[in-house]
Amino acid sequence: MIVGIPREIKLQEHRVGMTPAGVRTLVEDGHQVLVEHGAGLGSGLGDTAYAQAGASLVEESAELYATAQLVVKVKEPLPPEYPLLRAGQLLFTYLHLAPEPILTEALLASGCTAIAYETVTAADGNLPLLTPMSEIAGRMAPQVGAHWLQKGQGGKGVLLAGAPGVRPGRVVILGAGAVGSNALRIAVGMGADVTVLDIDPARLTALDEHYGNRIHTLAANSQSIEEEVPHADLLIGAVLVAGARAPRLVPR
Amino acid sequence: MIVGIPREIKLQEHRVGMTPAGVRTLVEDGHQVLVEHGAGLGSGLGDTAYAQAGASLVEESAELYATAQLVVKVKEPLPPEYPLLRAGQLLFTYLHLAPEPILTEALLASGCTAIAYETVTAADGNLPLLTPMSEIAGRMAPQVGAHWLQKGQGGKGVLLAGAPGVRPGRVVILGAGAVGSNALRIAVGMGADVTVLDIDPARLTALDEHYGNRIHTLAANSQSIEEEVPHADLLIGAVLVAGARAPRLVPR
Amino acid sequence: MIVGIPREIKLQEHRVGMTPAGVRTLVEDGHQVLVEHGAGLGSGLGDTAYAQAGASLVEESAELYATAQLVVKVKEPLPPEYPLLRAGQLLFTYLHLAPEPILTEALLASGCTAIAYETVTAADGNLPLLTPMSEIAGRMAPQVGAHWLQKGQGGKGVLLAGAPGVRPGRVVILGAGAVGSNALRIAVGMGADVTVLDIDPARLTALDEHYGNRIHTLAANSQSIEEEVPHADLLIGAVLVAGARAPRLVPR
Amino acid sequence: MIVGIPREIKLQEHRVGMTPAGVRTLVEDGHQVLVEHGAGLGSGLGDTAYAQAGASLVEESAELYATAQLVVKVKEPLPPEYPLLRAGQLLFTYLHLAPEPILTEALLASGCTAIAYETVTAADGNLPLLTPMSEIAGRMAPQVGAHWLQKGQGGKGVLLAGAPGVRPGRVVILGAGAVGSNALRIAVGMGADVTVLDIDPARLTALDEHYGNRIHTLAANSQSIEEEVPHADLLIGAVLVAGARAPRLVPR
Amino acid sequence: MIVGIPREIKLQEHRVGMTPAGVRTLVEDGHQVLVEHGAGLGSGLGDTAYAQAGASLVEESAELYATAQLVVKVKEPLPPEYPLLRAGQLLFTYLHLAPEPILTEALLASGCTAIAYETVTAADGNLPLLTPMSEIAGRMAPQVGAHWLQKGQGGKGVLLAGAPGVRPGRVVILGAGAVGSNALRIAVGMGADVTVLDIDPARLTALDEHYGNRIHTLAANSQSIEEEVPHADLLIGAVLVAGARAPRLVPR
Amino acid sequence: MIVGIPREIKLQEHRVGMTPAGVRTLVEDGHQVLVEHGAGLGSGLGDTAYAQAGASLVEESAELYATAQLVVKVKEPLPPEYPLLRAGQLLFTYLHLAPEPILTEALLASGCTAIAYETVTAADGNLPLLTPMSEIAGRMAPQVGAHWLQKGQGGKGVLLAGAPGVRPGRVVILGAGAVGSNALRIAVGMGADVTVLDIDPARLTALDEHYGNRIHTLAANSQSIEEEVPHADLLIGAVLVAGARAPRLVPR
Repeated sequence: MIVGIPREIKLQEHRVGMTPAGVRTLVEDGHQVLVEHGAGLGSGLGDTAYAQAGASLVEESAELYATAQLVVKVKEPLPPEYPLLRAGQLLFTYLHLAPEPILTEALLASGCTAIAYETVTAADGNLPLLTPMSEIAGRMAPQVGAHWLQKGQGGKGVLLAGAPGVRPGRVVILGAGAVGSNALRIAVGMGADVTVLDIDPARLTALDEHYGNRIHTLAANSQSIEEEVPHADLLIGAVLVAGARAPRLVPR
Repeated sequence: MIVGIPREIKLQEHRVGMTPAGVRTLVEDGHQVLVEHGAGLGSGLGDTAYAQAGASLVEESAELYATAQLVVKVKEPLPPEYPLLRAGQLLFTYLHLAPEPILTEALLASGCTAIAYETVTAADGNLPLLTPMSEIAGRMAPQVGAHWLQKGQGGKGVLLAGAPGVRPGRVVILGAGAVGSNALRIAVGMGADVTVLDIDPARLTALDEHYGNRIHTLAANSQSIEEEVPHADLLIGAVLVAGARAPRLVPR
Repeated sequence: MIVGIPREIKLQEHRVGMTPAGVRTLVEDGHQVLVEHGAGLGSGLGDTAYAQAGASLVEESAELYATAQLVVKVKEPLPPEYPLLRAGQLLFTYLHLAPEPILTEALLASGCTAIAYETVTAADGNLPLLTPMSEIAGRMAPQVGAHWLQKGQGGKGVLLAGAPGVRPGRVVILGAGAVGSNALRIAVGMGADVTVLDIDPARLTALDEHYGNRIHTLAANSQSIEEEVPHADLLIGAVLVAGARAPRLVPR
Repeated sequence: MIVGIPREIKLQEHRVGMTPAGVRTLVEDGHQVLVEHGAGLGSGLGDTAYAQAGASLVEESAELYATAQLVVKVKEPLPPEYPLLRAGQLLFTYLHLAPEPILTEALLASGCTAIAYETVTAADGNLPLLTPMSEIAGRMAPQVGAHWLQKGQGGKGVLLAGAPGVRPGRVVILGAGAVGSNALRIAVGMGADVTVLDIDPARLTALDEHYGNRIHTLAANSQSIEEEVPHADLLIGAVLVAGARAPRLVPR
Repeated sequence: MIVGIPREIKLQEHRVGMTPAGVRTLVEDGHQVLVEHGAGLGSGLGDTAYAQAGASLVEESAELYATAQLVVKVKEPLPPEYPLLRAGQLLFTYLHLAPEPILTEALLASGCTAIAYETVTAADGNLPLLTPMSEIAGRMAPQVGAHWLQKGQGGKGVLLAGAPGVRPGRVVILGAGAVGSNALRIAVGMGADVTVLDIDPARLTALDEHYGNRIHTLAANSQSIEEEVPHADLLIGAVLVAGARAPRLVPR
Repeated sequence: MIVGIPREIKLQEHRVGMTPAGVRTLVEDGHQVLVEHGAGLGSGLGDTAYAQAGASLVEESAELYATAQLVVKVKEPLPPEYPLLRAGQLLFTYLHLAPEPILTEALLASGCTAIAYETVTAADGNLPLLTPMSEIAGRMAPQVGAHWLQKGQGGKGVLLAGAPGVRPGRVVILGAGAVGSNALRIAVGMGADVTVLDIDPARLTALDEHYGNRIHTLAANSQSIEEEVPHADLLIGAVLVAGARAPRLVPR
């Protein structure tokens, strides 16, 4: 199969759809991989690394889309990319189509087969292609929150870690899935006083077994949320709303 | 030297001044050790064990006190023991003399040299003979407190451990010395939400390094104590007041 | 649906079938909830809290049973409650019917549909409504056992935690399910030398991975049980015998 | 003694020399405490809290300096404060005089007795009044560094925590004192791959005992520093240079 | 059923197919168990222990094979054992038939029903009878590797634990299944700098959650393996190749 | 000062008195360092590394000893080295003179000033130059012991780690100093059931605080040693006998 890795054109998107290691695995399995010039630069992966892994470098995205049977991207296609998609082509990327009717129409019109990473579901209900992003988002959340809590950033001047003899900051995490449990881990590591709420007792039990008295677990319902949220120095929302766009961690 | 280990006569005192292992060490070093018949029974140590360790068993305490140059006990002498003490004899035991003027007079009158365990102080300020009792008292405190918190015992019905999704009990410990840090350890192990207060920042730092976010450390002062104590399900006093009698863990 | 929460009338039963938070969730979902006057007092939950959560307070249990389509209780009905149950009514509570033929007959005679919490089984074989009680029972077991081991309670005078230089108490736990693993956690936290036996190697492996050399795991069979039990200071039975009544933790 | 707590006038200084709890302790000990109006606002401590603790509020700093026998501040006096100091007065604050000849002259000219927090040294060589600031600076360092490593902030796009299957960021800490060991703790908690260098083997041994294989310890010398620093994603300098000004954590 | 436990005749095989505890369980369930004289000696289990557990001791293996309906062994039959197997008999043992055509033919010719431990597969894909051997092999691997790294054994003179201020040895583990995760546990315990590679992200996530920054997890592919292996002081191969013979841990 | 680092000539001694990093530090401080050709080869440190660090390489040890004012070695001088030592020269090395009267005479005769690493004592009683060797010896002990416990090495066939459902090996460590606490750490990491005995309660308390119920601490005396040692699978002697030669870890 001919697999194409275009350069992402969305603003502030530094990721790339495949690393050189991934390219090499495909090539070892007999596939041909096209990589657009500079596709990996935002992630510190130069063209040479891709070439050494067996990829053919392509100067223009139009050429890549015209040849590739499977296009592996990160972000949804943007308008300049709509006309490049074609019938019979496979597109593999994050799509988050719910709030994007124009994109949806463009995909339908192109005749391509588009598979949204965030919808790939394993037999046990896990989302194997969404999970890695959730892990990263969850791990970043306390770090970003800690930044905005700094006095110099307009925050309350609360240090999550506290200090010996001084209370730590209070972090409340709504949801104990992939985002929430990764946020929990870093918030605990930063020394915060963390409370996590979830509607699934089995998740709370699993976290309770792992963290013991380093965290508080609470059954999530209207009342417990109303009681906890006002005392939070940092509130991390980590509930997956199916079909919704990924949340933004920094203010616009 | 002739060392004597009498049987304790104080009510509910089950301890003994020396184990057979201690006897053996002394005998190996060339001393003679007298043990009163039944002295170790309260601690599950039979006369045979003492005999095998090299002790000479003595039927009557009067005989023991008459011969021993050094008497090693647990508790302060009681009135029946006052006349057995004699000039030139060494007495080694817990005394807690501050609230005991009659005992103090009796000791002075006997002419013996009495060394109170609780006053033996190492070069670094530690109390090596009080510490083991403090370790035990501290480790028992949360267990005793947990008992009295049970609904069936007239308590609030709070389980220190809580449960997944349910808040644990709150334990506040005043003082982070030998008693406090041992109580802390068990209270944490029982799953409680523990706050410890001390006036010494170095102690708080040491506990903070060891326990991280499994506990809260607070600088002790009138205000912090006033704020914390009302929210405690279990309050453990662990401040050493020099000269005071050891506290009772169970209600009279 | 009209849901009724009666006050428990069994001696020494301080629990209630639903918290105000549960009531609120039901009310938010459009149900009507009746709560008997004083139903939550044993758990520190006043009538006001239920009213604020949207419940209608009912003075008499007869009125509650007459109106409620679903009755949510804690304990099995007692004889005074038998005549209140009626055909078409749903009863949701712990029943433990095996040793209770009279109760079983009364339920059959009433025509109600009774669902025993302890029999609700998830697809993976777990018992989601029995588990929370098992968690609490398991966490209480070492605390209760520690109490009865105290010399003053007629015990052996063994402190589970031991002390530096002194062996801790030995706890043997038969069964590594919900009760056993929660008992294990608290026994470890209290500093005991814990051995857990189970017939399921996968459970032993899971505990071995979690606790490492803080515990001993042993394959349960007649021989290993015979070898371990005699050396236990505290023996905790944690084997679920289907249909049996919940064990009593305190002597009658 | 009359103790005065002025409002800090240095730009971006939000701290205050004493909390209400500190005021209360002094007042309980018979001292009089003057607090300048608004002194605690930057730290979220209102005038009312000080008044309730027993302080007398003073409108003008001139009045406070004129009356107070002991002035407790945070930062070194600024030129507008120079004329307020007077002979016989005690000044207790951070001074960092080494790079501040003009301030030094002003203090000498005032005739006050100025004690720099950062020079108060305990018998064991510790700096009890510098340590709390070092603890906070150390705990903030990884959080601030993590922020600047974000791609959106112009950084390398390295997440300290890494992710399952992805290498974490590398943090190198020079110095294992109060700042270094607190930075270490948070960096480890954030999931980084941390190496700490120090010239004191005893410090390395202590950290090695505490953290085991969660960190790497290295003997600091020219060669090891040259080898480690180039591979660091985040380099934290934590060496105390006696007499130097406190480092700035954010770029000018 | 009549169950027979022969003595293993393979060189350097010290194991036995069943312990006395296993025998006792079978006997309690009504089975008859024959044990060959001396079968357990290599594992420190004397004939008396088997007899006390209810086994009938048999002098000759021929007699045992002639009577037993089920033969429970450890290792595959060797040529002297081939003629002892017979039609209708059940043989339960490790077989690893892939590289053993002669053995395979002998089994077929015997008419027995042979079940290879290593092929028994649970519903969830686990191999319950291979796992215990994998656990032991995995736990031994770092210990054996550490031995061969010693200078006196011709190794590099690397101590896995390192020392304070000195880098630990680097262990790379290929595969995070039963062998790999047990090897990992001991390698971490010995203080090594461990990297584990696997193709299954879920396994890496599970290990990452358990070990945090005590290990590195890496997605396994040609490139990551090429990069990691050259820097390893100790490389542990822990990939199950279905049908392959168990690896040898010591050089021939 | 002129510092000389000779090549060690003792059989099986692979160490060297100074690393290139140490050389560089001395050179940076203005000293001249002579290194004998090949001195570091046994430790994987080539002549080039020493030259780059600023050392002057010397072909013959005679030349080195003739010039160096300070000789830094690892092992005691052997007879061929006796005549190279000279009056006024400083010798810095491990000596362990107690069982070596001939060496002692040779040193006296040479007129050099010899300082034995193992006798350098810090103000707090620590032995800073013996400790690193003790750390390594302690960490190696369980690894070496585990090797000799293997069945194939003539041992009992005990795996220190045990396995899920199988008891781990029992390690008894006599002495909780530098060797003992490092041995303890690795033995615990290898999964053993470890008991450590020491005569100093403060050491036991420190280990008890650090390891909790992962180890047993026992007060060392004749009786406790007699009771524990017979049950040990691996016994590690870790008591420093002042003046004694370093113990051998492998059988002669």
